[in-house]
Amino acid sequence: MSATMKKIDVDVHNALKSPRDIYPYFPQPWKSQGAGLPTSGYPSPIDFKRENSIPPSGGPAASDADYIVQHLIEPNDIEFAIMTGHYFDVSALVDPDHAAAIASAYNDYMANDWLPKHASFRGTIVVATQDPFQAVREIDRMAERSSMAAVVLSTAQPGLLGQRRFHPIYEAAARHGLPIAIHPGADGGGGTYPPTPSGYPTHFMEYHLRTSQSFLGHMISLVCEGVPEKFPNLKFAMLGGGVSWVPHLLWRLDKNYKALRSTVPWLKRFPSEYIRDHFLFSANPLEEAYDPQNMLDLFNMIDAENVLLYSSDYPNRDDGTATNLLNRLSPEARKKIVYDNAKKLYRL
Amino acid sequence: MSATMKKIDVDVHNALKSPRDIYPYFPQPWKSQGAGLPTSGYPSPIDFKRENSIPPSGGPAASDADYIVQHLIEPNDIEFAIMTGHYFDVSALVDPDHAAAIASAYNDYMANDWLPKHASFRGTIVVATQDPFQAVREIDRMAERSSMAAVVLSTAQPGLLGQRRFHPIYEAAARHGLPIAIHPGADGGGGTYPPTPSGYPTHFMEYHLRTSQSFLGHMISLVCEGVPEKFPNLKFAMLGGGVSWVPHLLWRLDKNYKALRSTVPWLKRFPSEYIRDHFLFSANPLEEAYDPQNMLDLFNMIDAENVLLYSSDYPNRDDGTATNLLNRLSPEARKKIVYDNAKKLYRL
Repeated sequence: MSATMKKIDVDVHNALKSPRDIYPYFPQPWKSQGAGLPTSGYPSPIDFKRENSIPPSGGPAASDADYIVQHLIEPNDIEFAIMTGHYFDVSALVDPDHAAAIASAYNDYMANDWLPKHASFRGTIVVATQDPFQAVREIDRMAERSSMAAVVLSTAQPGLLGQRRFHPIYEAAARHGLPIAIHPGADGGGGTYPPTPSGYPTHFMEYHLRTSQSFLGHMISLVCEGVPEKFPNLKFAMLGGGVSWVPHLLWRLDKNYKALRSTVPWLKRFPSEYIRDHFLFSANPLEEAYDPQNMLDLFNMIDAENVLLYSSDYPNRDDGTATNLLNRLSPEARKKIVYDNAKKLYRL
Repeated sequence: MSATMKKIDVDVHNALKSPRDIYPYFPQPWKSQGAGLPTSGYPSPIDFKRENSIPPSGGPAASDADYIVQHLIEPNDIEFAIMTGHYFDVSALVDPDHAAAIASAYNDYMANDWLPKHASFRGTIVVATQDPFQAVREIDRMAERSSMAAVVLSTAQPGLLGQRRFHPIYEAAARHGLPIAIHPGADGGGGTYPPTPSGYPTHFMEYHLRTSQSFLGHMISLVCEGVPEKFPNLKFAMLGGGVSWVPHLLWRLDKNYKALRSTVPWLKRFPSEYIRDHFLFSANPLEEAYDPQNMLDLFNMIDAENVLLYSSDYPNRDDGTATNLLNRLSPEARKKIVYDNAKKLYRL
């Protein structure tokens, strides 16, 4: 894939120099409690960051907007970069008001101090799902800013995302024409559930592998609870979780639906049809088959050219798997994946 | 697939007429507490049983050994039928001693009153994993009976099955040359964890779809904790959970291993190699792709002819998906799946 092919990057993990960056927007009593986010209890034993991602100005990787432009945006011909950050994990906090205050302060900081720094930057609205009504007010407050392109949610949630208590959030996003981006987060941390259906894994490697279990749980819930039927214009971008589990999901959902459709009467179509029309998936990181043809067969099963979205996952390392695979597709398919699908999804 | 092709059926759900059937082997104080097993809280709204599976003698489907012979074994030319039952869910009970007492009484009942009824019948040893040392004693007590072909475990466990506390169970099974069969159970019931990484789903359909999340969790745990390396002769039969999630597991495991191998130094090979050598999968129920070629591509990704095991899942309905797919394979591959793989695995 040519670096000079115009792209939309749907998953850039901007960071703050310090949680204190948001303090100008962070009222008391919250400021005294700090803006720390829950952690999972599984610290990474290795550095996943790409080379030279620490900005010369200091601070964490991806914490300098100008350096992101120089290191990522310009060399890769990225026309729009969707900033997903890390603050989606406010949903893992136990206190809904503390979570909502951090979300608001972060959104204000991004809208005022970060996103105006480059024409390519687009933000994602962070919300505290613990109190869906506060989340709706936050979406209403931020959605009409042209710099905001989506609502972003962590997989680390106080429940399965299809459940009815979360529907007001989808109603608000749909009303403003914003998609929902879902990203792996600190599952198991704070007020969330154990990160696998059988409790807490032992090692970071196992924890890191749990992502598909979280995505499967949330997507099954979203589809079976009828969210795409209830909000026909709402779309979801599933970021950073790969795609090789998607055929399983499509086939099992439809098979169960044939037997159990009377128990989910709000569904008017096969579950796989809702997934094809409402869910897209980021292309990085991507699973790596021994024989690349296996992944191309899998791309065929999921209609990859219409559901994949280019992403750098910056500042995390890019191992080239996605690029190698995309280079095997037709130029038309590649263009949809690196540009057209995202342009339409985020209404850029 | 011809009904007159000799088969080994690795997943037959024999039932008791009543929990009281085991009472002759069930001492006090347990008898007064009963032999009930935890339930998941998700009762099925439909009857999954096949036609005419209720025996003329009355009682639940598959509760009459003679009728199983007449209805399943003889018409399908089954040489061996592995009886997996329902009692594997003792592992979901909170009290380890109550669980161990039910397991022992059930195993005695099966060995004495059921398995001698037909030459094709083979049992599976039920154990209470809450107290692995009692489980080892139970395996040692039952393993040398020729009627016992495996140790059976539910996915509904007090933890992830690769964790070290469970290793004595694997040591005992390996010492007796018995494989471990793992079957979906009452995940979320009794003393187990919520059945998805984000808590309790709303509907039975979603609950029924959770199976792959449980299998992924346990298999990632078993491989990353080094169980196949520590017990090189131990094999696992993953029953009733389908196979379309397996390529994802193989590819993600190996990719993570490349980055994180220093954190799991007991692994000497790629995780996918352990899976190929130690894990087999039952072929029923099976996912159904729109285009059967997709499933055949997937079979190719998992080396299906060497890892699939024929199963009826009796008395549950057989929708023909597996049969249709097996009929597209070569006669040699089909023979391995319906007979040879199981004969070797269960040492029949």
